[in-house]
Amino acid sequence: MYKLIATYKVPNDIEAFEKHYTEVHTPLVKKVPGVKEIRVNRVFAAPMGKPTLHLVAEVVFSDKETFNAAMKSPENMASGKDAMTFAGDLVSVHFATEEIISL
Amino acid sequence: MYKLIATYKVPNDIEAFEKHYTEVHTPLVKKVPGVKEIRVNRVFAAPMGKPTLHLVAEVVFSDKETFNAAMKSPENMASGKDAMTFAGDLVSVHFATEEIISL
Repeated sequence: MYKLIATYKVPNDIEAFEKHYTEVHTPLVKKVPGVKEIRVNRVFAAPMGKPTLHLVAEVVFSDKETFNAAMKSPENMASGKDAMTFAGDLVSVHFATEEIISL
Repeated sequence: MYKLIATYKVPNDIEAFEKHYTEVHTPLVKKVPGVKEIRVNRVFAAPMGKPTLHLVAEVVFSDKETFNAAMKSPENMASGKDAMTFAGDLVSVHFATEEIISL
């Protein structure tokens, strides 16, 4: 799998963040061509102290070609622009490959 | 799903990091009771500039009870101690729930 992984630091206003993330941002991500799954990880604790991240989002693609085409799409530009608008100071974006070790 | 998500910043010596992560750390994580999957995401790029993260590891558990028991286990203590030893200045650990949106 190929993934766009977006980490979001803890926002000042979690309720407003969640509302925008769910009602505006996620629908934009769903429009990106070739997306197989969106995995939304909500951080509820850390082993020591308060968590520094609020959310880790994985946008999952089946293969490299689909991922590359998606990244260049106007829909992805719109999604990225939205992320910068509502969470520009919170978000970091990474492109990654996924290796699954099943136990 | 319940997850321990560990983010690792880019190490100075990527080869040494990968060797320890694969040969020493992953076997320790595999021993933690109740682990369903380990998903190892290796960052290969970022949309702007150089990536700040090298690796995002997800240690996946089926439910909250299994997760809580695992976190208290001696095997998890050993895994955490190892992470602090080889990557104490690189790693951040988060506990999260996963919501999957399939398209």
